Amino acid sequence: MKNEKYALGVDIGGTNIKLGIVSSSGKIVFKTMLPTNRRDGPDEVISQLKKGIKSILGKKKYKIKGIGIGAAGSVSSKDGTVSNPPNVPGWKVVNIVKIIKEEFNVSVFIDNDANAAAIGEMLYGVGKNYSSFALITLGTGVGGGLILNNKIFQGITGAAGEIGHISIDHNGRKCNCGAHGCVEAYVGNHYLIDIVKKELLDHKDSKILELINYNTDLLTPIIINQASEADDKYANDVIEKVGYYVGCALSTVANLLEMDTFIIGGGVSAFGRPLIDSIKMTIKKNVLKILKNRINVLQAQLKNDAGVIGAASLIFYNSKLN
Amino acid sequence: MKNEKYALGVDIGGTNIKLGIVSSSGKIVFKTMLPTNRRDGPDEVISQLKKGIKSILGKKKYKIKGIGIGAAGSVSSKDGTVSNPPNVPGWKVVNIVKIIKEEFNVSVFIDNDANAAAIGEMLYGVGKNYSSFALITLGTGVGGGLILNNKIFQGITGAAGEIGHISIDHNGRKCNCGAHGCVEAYVGNHYLIDIVKKELLDHKDSKILELINYNTDLLTPIIINQASEADDKYANDVIEKVGYYVGCALSTVANLLEMDTFIIGGGVSAFGRPLIDSIKMTIKKNVLKILKNRINVLQAQLKNDAGVIGAASLIFYNSKLN
Repeated sequence: MKNEKYALGVDIGGTNIKLGIVSSSGKIVFKTMLPTNRRDGPDEVISQLKKGIKSILGKKKYKIKGIGIGAAGSVSSKDGTVSNPPNVPGWKVVNIVKIIKEEFNVSVFIDNDANAAAIGEMLYGVGKNYSSFALITLGTGVGGGLILNNKIFQGITGAAGEIGHISIDHNGRKCNCGAHGCVEAYVGNHYLIDIVKKELLDHKDSKILELINYNTDLLTPIIINQASEADDKYANDVIEKVGYYVGCALSTVANLLEMDTFIIGGGVSAFGRPLIDSIKMTIKKNVLKILKNRINVLQAQLKNDAGVIGAASLIFYNSKLN
Repeated sequence: MKNEKYALGVDIGGTNIKLGIVSSSGKIVFKTMLPTNRRDGPDEVISQLKKGIKSILGKKKYKIKGIGIGAAGSVSSKDGTVSNPPNVPGWKVVNIVKIIKEEFNVSVFIDNDANAAAIGEMLYGVGKNYSSFALITLGTGVGGGLILNNKIFQGITGAAGEIGHISIDHNGRKCNCGAHGCVEAYVGNHYLIDIVKKELLDHKDSKILELINYNTDLLTPIIINQASEADDKYANDVIEKVGYYVGCALSTVANLLEMDTFIIGGGVSAFGRPLIDSIKMTIKKNVLKILKNRINVLQAQLKNDAGVIGAASLIFYNSKLN
């Protein structure tokens, strides 16, 4: 299209850095990826990041308005920094925005990956139709992004939206963050797999065990989903329980913010309709009367490209704001 | 003062309607009260409300800019309505703003009492120094108000801020609202008294029992506070526990909104320093690393007049916004 503008979206994940040129109507027109090499430390990650950006900017076809970056961990969008991302040895606080701006001399925005995904859903996904919603990403970690009146709510330094660290039980499971009962400690990938491994000892007839050839090291959310699709009762129960835990946390978001719309993204959201139904039922059951008949729970629309489109959307979103 | 402006603040409580003329610098220059007569139904409450306003407007000395009303229960500040307030038989949805505007022909704003208290603290209390804070009121119910970037956050219809209905235990005590583990179900007056009554069976040496002459019907938060001031160990434990429960709920507010400042109001906040310390310690222990060293927990400053000053502040606040 003649009036399309373009931005470069960069999704810094634990395994790969994904990059894509995204149009202002939310389409990826070119994409690539390279390994994050996070175990080699911050300098190597930054070097990979620059390499990736250089390679994609070499494709001269699209003039970009800027570079949007989504990253896991503690990101200050205001300062442009990423602090202590998971599993990168030696990384304390790194000002990625400054580094990339100096190298490429374009406008650069960064946000945590869940906030970027929320902005992506607001501009290009199922969030288009709602002025306020909470997005939750279910993956290794459980992240969140809050859209309030068509704006991302970032808090004082940009760290708001940590839905994964809503405690649903003050006496509950210990979370990596040090607190007890965070919803991440029930439905974050590792925690979930851990729980299921133990429970399988009492569910020896579950199809999950057949699918992994009785080797629980092969257990993944995808396997649980496959068993559920083959109508395995225990797998169904697991998905319902995940929905219940997530629903408990989102009920708190609902009551606190009078929030009625929730978008579910991330890998575990592949549990699909049964997960969505369980989340919705739990929220409706738990929230105050005024909210009961207004609750929407929706599957995120951007799926696999959420990271790159979300990151690029930071550019279009921020240029609208300014 | 020459340039002072004035507003009428009206606090509709369960027992009394309190009214006061409040200056734009937050001072009450005249006040009065009359019984709510809530058991006689909505018409009687409205009639008392009009009577109170008439009597105070009869004092011609002050020209008022408008009438601000704070009310318990489900208030839509946008529609001007109060829905199903606690313990008023026959009250469904009543548009108080419309009724009072028509009768007195002045500008009228309404909000729930916790939101009004939060605005009051922002304009005239300890909240003056913070651009964002969460206020929690500890009384019969547990209410809340969220100030985000110097504005009250009301949600879609004005029902946001229900801190009392943050669940701290999805398997916990049943709350009046129907959900389990709401913090109100642990520290709301009736619930708290209920818990203490039962626990006193195992604390027969507590000074609380002396103070109430062994008649547990006389048990109130004030008595617990008296016993604590006389260094009663069990009473101290109760206050610490109240702080712990409140702190658990506020940790969720902190993580979700990157909120670092909390103001504690309402009757139970008379527990004072030991309560504040316990809340603060619990929050610091539970929140994400980025927040741990930034947590402020403060006692509300407006105390007994919080209702009337908060209600009047709706007028000064809204006239600034418009």
